[in-house]
Amino acid sequence: MRVRVPPEAHYIFFRCMNENNIKKEIIGFIKKEFRKAKTSKAIIGISGGVDSALVSFLCKEAGLDLYICLFPYKKRGLKEARLIAEELKIEKNKIFYLELDTLIDNQVNSIKKILKKSKYKLNKIGEGNIVPRERMILLNAVASSVNGIIVGTENLSEYLLGYFTEYGDVACDVFPIAGLWKTQVFNLARNIGVPLEIINKEPTGDIFEGLTDEIDLGFSYKEADEILYLYFIKKMKEEEIANNYNFSKKLIRMVIKRVDITNYKRIKKPKMLFS
Amino acid sequence: MRVRVPPEAHYIFFRCMNENNIKKEIIGFIKKEFRKAKTSKAIIGISGGVDSALVSFLCKEAGLDLYICLFPYKKRGLKEARLIAEELKIEKNKIFYLELDTLIDNQVNSIKKILKKSKYKLNKIGEGNIVPRERMILLNAVASSVNGIIVGTENLSEYLLGYFTEYGDVACDVFPIAGLWKTQVFNLARNIGVPLEIINKEPTGDIFEGLTDEIDLGFSYKEADEILYLYFIKKMKEEEIANNYNFSKKLIRMVIKRVDITNYKRIKKPKMLFS
Repeated sequence: MRVRVPPEAHYIFFRCMNENNIKKEIIGFIKKEFRKAKTSKAIIGISGGVDSALVSFLCKEAGLDLYICLFPYKKRGLKEARLIAEELKIEKNKIFYLELDTLIDNQVNSIKKILKKSKYKLNKIGEGNIVPRERMILLNAVASSVNGIIVGTENLSEYLLGYFTEYGDVACDVFPIAGLWKTQVFNLARNIGVPLEIINKEPTGDIFEGLTDEIDLGFSYKEADEILYLYFIKKMKEEEIANNYNFSKKLIRMVIKRVDITNYKRIKKPKMLFS
Repeated sequence: MRVRVPPEAHYIFFRCMNENNIKKEIIGFIKKEFRKAKTSKAIIGISGGVDSALVSFLCKEAGLDLYICLFPYKKRGLKEARLIAEELKIEKNKIFYLELDTLIDNQVNSIKKILKKSKYKLNKIGEGNIVPRERMILLNAVASSVNGIIVGTENLSEYLLGYFTEYGDVACDVFPIAGLWKTQVFNLARNIGVPLEIINKEPTGDIFEGLTDEIDLGFSYKEADEILYLYFIKKMKEEEIANNYNFSKKLIRMVIKRVDITNYKRIKKPKMLFS
């Protein structure tokens, strides 16, 4: 399996580090990347979830100038996103707010209509990708206008599980928490003072009503993180994991398969003649 | 300069090859990539320009099943795009047609409005990127619905000059003409039977009224191709080129600078901690 996992030593290291040290490490990384990019303006799309909340708190501690974008679809996550903006004391002129409903509905209806003429149907995956891609367009327009860079909020669990949209939520400039398992994201968020309302909210992509990440994936992040760690970092075989840990073979297979079938998203490169 | 140029030998090779051999080589490449992707359905966005026309003709000769998308903005290029669809004898149910005007205008107006509240303005670069990114969203929705892959129409000149939109026109799966200079694109298009109306049309991004590529770039593709070839493939210094060829130092600098300042688009990689 050609899964792209960054150097394993660091993840084992990260697993053993306490939150204060992880925080220090990440803040140092953010500062370094913004120095390189020659800007102090961090554009962050805040969904109301724990990942973007944590990233914003980290950027604030790194001394950056936050420009936050609230681009809710069907108002999902809006209340929580506003709470984060308040906690971070973001000035009004650095909050960009746009409800995506009309934009997305128009797009989805247009594409449904043109497909229907040819007897095709927009499938759920196709539809689900529209929201993060629309956000990407808008975040880039903001970044280009204020002359800042976009901070991604992807974590390691999502990355390995392929739980992201190409040219969408991963089309960012810098990814400070891409080395953290989702379970570590929760811990660090607690440590840095993200409101409990955000931390206790079930992770969701906020695209389809009621669809949480864990329902969609078919397993919990806690299970996935442990299995992925044992499989990719500790290099244990599926059977070994089943024999030594309290996970069913079926569950282990399900998690590893999810990585396998989303491999193309991580290794994708433009295929050019003679490249 | 860390410009990513595919192995130079191939370009020298390509420069010496006649159109028939280049065509054979590219068609073989297309067939191989589609076999790997396990589909025969090629999704191509047809702008009315020579690049997408050539790519469609090549895909047709490779025996693929063409699904073409006409997504004109302000009807620009629409007449020519329709002509190509006719020439290729594309069945009606494989033509997806949507005028982007309302979608783009809504987006541009929305983003202008939210920026204005914070006293920011959408700049031309930000605005210009919206059209190709919107097309990317729609092409992906079509690809996902018909279960095909998207064929990119980027050529080598555009690639080196950074004349493309990240997460937009380069967000495709396979790039058959990315090894051809724009001047070669014209020659091959002529060879393969692309209508002269298309070949003789001035290259344009069709975003801003009357803005052709060559006006926008400040030099012609003919000049750029020759200078880029001498500089990157023949490894000549700027002064050497000026002394031996009929190009002014100013023009040479302008072309090379264009590559230099767009370098970030080609080497961009997600910046993760520990990656």
